[in-house]
Amino acid sequence: MQQQLYVYNTLTRQQGLFQPIAPPHVGLYVCGPTVYGPAHLGHARCYLTFDTIKRYLQHIGYKVRYVRNITDVGHLERDADEGEDKILQQARLEKIEPMEVVQRYTNSFHSDIAALNIEAPDIEPTASGHIPEQIALIEKMLQQGCAYEVEGSVYFDIKAYEQHHRYGELSGRKLEDVLSGTRTLKSQAEKKSPVDFALWKKADATHIMRWPSPWGEGFPGWHTECAALGYKYLGSYFDIHGGGMDLLFPHHECEVVQARAMHNTTSAKYWIHNNMVTLHDQKMSKSLGNYITLAQLFQGTHPLLTRPYHPMILRFFYLQAHYRSTVNFSNEALQGAEKGYLKLMNGLKAIQNMRYPADVIESGRAEVHMTTIEQHIALGYEAMNDDFNTAKLIAALFQMLKLIHALETRSLAIEEAAFEKLKQAYTLFVVDILGLQPFFQTEPTNLIATIMQVYADAKQQKNYAQVDMLRAELKSKGITIKDTRYGAVWEYGEYPEV
Amino acid sequence: MQQQLYVYNTLTRQQGLFQPIAPPHVGLYVCGPTVYGPAHLGHARCYLTFDTIKRYLQHIGYKVRYVRNITDVGHLERDADEGEDKILQQARLEKIEPMEVVQRYTNSFHSDIAALNIEAPDIEPTASGHIPEQIALIEKMLQQGCAYEVEGSVYFDIKAYEQHHRYGELSGRKLEDVLSGTRTLKSQAEKKSPVDFALWKKADATHIMRWPSPWGEGFPGWHTECAALGYKYLGSYFDIHGGGMDLLFPHHECEVVQARAMHNTTSAKYWIHNNMVTLHDQKMSKSLGNYITLAQLFQGTHPLLTRPYHPMILRFFYLQAHYRSTVNFSNEALQGAEKGYLKLMNGLKAIQNMRYPADVIESGRAEVHMTTIEQHIALGYEAMNDDFNTAKLIAALFQMLKLIHALETRSLAIEEAAFEKLKQAYTLFVVDILGLQPFFQTEPTNLIATIMQVYADAKQQKNYAQVDMLRAELKSKGITIKDTRYGAVWEYGEYPEV
Repeated sequence: MQQQLYVYNTLTRQQGLFQPIAPPHVGLYVCGPTVYGPAHLGHARCYLTFDTIKRYLQHIGYKVRYVRNITDVGHLERDADEGEDKILQQARLEKIEPMEVVQRYTNSFHSDIAALNIEAPDIEPTASGHIPEQIALIEKMLQQGCAYEVEGSVYFDIKAYEQHHRYGELSGRKLEDVLSGTRTLKSQAEKKSPVDFALWKKADATHIMRWPSPWGEGFPGWHTECAALGYKYLGSYFDIHGGGMDLLFPHHECEVVQARAMHNTTSAKYWIHNNMVTLHDQKMSKSLGNYITLAQLFQGTHPLLTRPYHPMILRFFYLQAHYRSTVNFSNEALQGAEKGYLKLMNGLKAIQNMRYPADVIESGRAEVHMTTIEQHIALGYEAMNDDFNTAKLIAALFQMLKLIHALETRSLAIEEAAFEKLKQAYTLFVVDILGLQPFFQTEPTNLIATIMQVYADAKQQKNYAQVDMLRAELKSKGITIKDTRYGAVWEYGEYPEV
Repeated sequence: MQQQLYVYNTLTRQQGLFQPIAPPHVGLYVCGPTVYGPAHLGHARCYLTFDTIKRYLQHIGYKVRYVRNITDVGHLERDADEGEDKILQQARLEKIEPMEVVQRYTNSFHSDIAALNIEAPDIEPTASGHIPEQIALIEKMLQQGCAYEVEGSVYFDIKAYEQHHRYGELSGRKLEDVLSGTRTLKSQAEKKSPVDFALWKKADATHIMRWPSPWGEGFPGWHTECAALGYKYLGSYFDIHGGGMDLLFPHHECEVVQARAMHNTTSAKYWIHNNMVTLHDQKMSKSLGNYITLAQLFQGTHPLLTRPYHPMILRFFYLQAHYRSTVNFSNEALQGAEKGYLKLMNGLKAIQNMRYPADVIESGRAEVHMTTIEQHIALGYEAMNDDFNTAKLIAALFQMLKLIHALETRSLAIEEAAFEKLKQAYTLFVVDILGLQPFFQTEPTNLIATIMQVYADAKQQKNYAQVDMLRAELKSKGITIKDTRYGAVWEYGEYPEV
C-alpha cells in the first residue's frame, strides 16, 4: 500500500501501523442492528463510521470483505440473559408475527441507511439464518470444557476459561469487579457464576422463535451470534471487528472469550469502536425520552427538532468529529453543519464546472504549481492515515476550498496539471471517501439550467420583476442564485422546507 | 367482503368465487428469485402480478400476509437434481464467496423491483436461513415412509406416495408420461425411480455451501425449500400459492406432493400462475440470447432495445394484458404502452388539479350524475373481480378518462358529489391498485411551476423566442406544455433520453 495507515486498536489501547493478516485482503465485521424498531441516530453514527473506514481502505488499495449482521433473534431486553426477546416483545405490541417485525424493520433500516449514502455490506447474515452454525460452535465449546448445560440451556464457563486464559482481554475489566457489580437475577441460579453468559437458552412454552438442538428446543444467545457469523464468513482470526462503544462490554468481551476458548485468537486483530451521540449533552436513550429516529430527523417530526434535516447534513455533522469523540446533537449544531456542508458542496460544483483554460487564469508564471496542490493532498491523506480522522480531512478540504474560490474569482493563476489534480483530489475526498452527495440529483438540475437561461435573459433585458421572482422561487427550493463578474451561477442553498 | 372476487385456480382448472380459509386473513406465498444474477423481465412480470393481486386483496378488505422467499442455495443448474448449484457457479465466475453473490443479487433485485413500485413482502425468508426447518420436514417424510436415504442423500419416493395419493394433482401430468420423458442422468442411479426428487443432497468435497444433517453434510433440495418456508410462515394449508407458469412443473407439483404426504393438503387452496414473456414472439431465455435484464431495460443498454424505458412503462405494459396471457415484448409494444401510460397519468394530473366549482361547469341541470360515475366504478371492480383482469380495468379507466377530458374542456356539467367520487375512484384505481406513479416525483415538479409562471409571462408579453425556448427545453426533459383556452398547463411527455 502507498499509504501508511495508523489505526487505534481498543485491544492494545494504542494507535499503530495497520498491518492486515493477508494483504491486500481485509476482513471487516461490524455488529449490525437488532431489528425491533426504527433505526436511530446512534445506529447512523456506527454504520457511517465503518462505511467511511471501508471506503478509505478500498481507496488505498485493500480488497475489503465487509460483513454486517442483522440480529433477528436472541437479543433479550436490557441485553441480559433473561427476559423477553426484543423481537418477540415488539411482535406482541404490533400484533404481527416475529418475522414480520424483522422484515419491517430490516426494510426501514436499509432505506434509512441508504439515504445516508452508506453502502451495503458484502454479506449481511441473520442470526436466525445460522442456527446450525451456532449449535456447532456451542458443541465445540462444550467439548473443550468451557461451557456447561443446565436444564436445556448452555452457558459459557468463565471459571474454566480462567484456568487457561485471562478474562477482560478486550475491555480491561477485572473479573472481581464484574462479579461484585452483577445483580442477582432469577436466571443466575442456573449459572455456576453470575459472570457466565448464555450460549443457548431453553425456550419456554410461550416462546415462538425456537429451534431443535442437542439440548432441546431453544434459541441462541446474542453473544454467540456474532462469534458464529464472524467465524463463518471471515475465519477464526480476521482483521477488523467494529461496533459502537456501548457494545465493548459485555458483548465484544464475550466474543473475544469465545474466540480465545475455541481458536486461541482474539477473533479480530484490530477492534475499533466508535463513540456515542449525546443530545443536549445528555446520553441519548429510549428511557430518557431523548431518542431520535432517522425517519424523525429526515422529516422533522420529533418534538426536539426545530425543522427537518436532510440525511447529508447528518452525514457531514458526524464526519466533522473524529469517530472516537462523542458528538453532541442539537439543532444549532446541525444547522452549523449544514453551512459547512454547503460550502464543501458548492466548492465541488464550482471546481467540477470550471474548464481550463476558459474559466481560470493561466499564466506563464503561474502562482499555483503542482507542489502546492500535492501539499494540500498530502494533508488530506495525513488526516485519514491518522486513525481515519475525518475532522482533520474536512479542515484540509476547507484549505483547498480557499484555493478553489481564488481560482473562481480569477485572483490566482494556476498550471493546467495542478488544476486538474486539484479537481480530481477534491472530488475524491468529498465524494468517494467522505461519501457526500448534493441534496438533489440530476432531474431538478436539468430544470435549473433552463431557469438560469431565463434568468440571464431577464437580467440582460433589465426585467427586474422577473429577476426577483426567479431568485425568490429558487430560494424556496434550496437554490441560491449568485451574480458574479462572469455571469450568474446557482449554488446549493439551505435545505428547503418539506 | 363487499366485492365478490372470482379467481382462476390452476388446481381445479376453473375460475370460482374466492373464499379464503379464515377471512379476513389471506396467506399468500410466492416463489422468489434464485439470486445468482440480475433480475430480468420474467421476474418483473411475476412479482408485478402478485403485487397487484396483493394490492387488490388489501383494498377489498383482506389482511394479507405475503411471504416471498429468496433462493440462495440448492437450486441446481437446469433445475435438475444434479449439476452445480447456480449460486456456487456464479461465485466461481465472479471469484467471490457464495454469500457475496447472494448479497449482491439480492440487493440488485430489491432495487430493480422497488423501481417498478412493487411493494416488499411481509416476510422474505431465505433457503440457507432455514436449514433446521428443512431437515425437520425431511425427517417427517422419512418417518412417514414416503422418502428414502441413499449414500447421504434423501429422495422423495413417488412409488410409495402413489399407494395413498395421486401424482400430478396440480400439473395434471400422468406418471407414465413423466417417466417416459425423463432423461437418464448420472444421479438417477441412486434413485429408485427417475421421477423421485431430491429432498437433501450429499455435498461432495468441493461443495462449499454445506450443513450437518442426520444424513451427513449436505444441502437441501430446491423443492423442499418452498415446502418448508410456506409451512413455517403460513401453515400446512394456506390460501394462495403463486409463481410463474414455468414453475408449475416440476417445482410446484413437488410441493403439492410433499404437502399431501405430510399434511394431506394441496399446500394452498388456490394456485395462481402468471404466464410468460416472449420477445419478438420467441420464448425469452438465456440460451437463446434474447434475455433482457431490468437494469438493461431501464438504461437502454441491451442491443435489442432502441432506447431506455422507465420502469413505469414496463409496469403499464404488463398490466395492459391479463396475467394469464402471454405478453410479447418489443420496442414498438413498449412505446405503445408508454402512450397509454401517459394518457392515464395526464388524466390523473388533470383530475387531481381540478377544483370544484372553479375548474368545471356546475349546473343546476348537471349532465353527469352520481349514477353515471357509479356505473364507471362498477366496471372497474367488475374487471378486477374477474380474476384480477387489469386489462379490462385499464379499458374502464380509459372510459373514465373521456369524462375527465370532457370536464377539462368544460363540455359537460357535473354534480359536485359525482365529481369528487370520480376523482377519488380514478386515483384509487390508477395509484393504489395498479400502482402507477409519474416518471418523476416532487422536486422537478416544483421547478416546473416556476417555469410555467415564466412561460405565462412570456406569452403575455409576446416574447415568442422565450416561449419557443421553454417549450423545447421542457420537451427534452419529458414535459410537454399545452396551451388551452384556460391557460397553459404542463403534461407528462415521453420519457426523456438518459
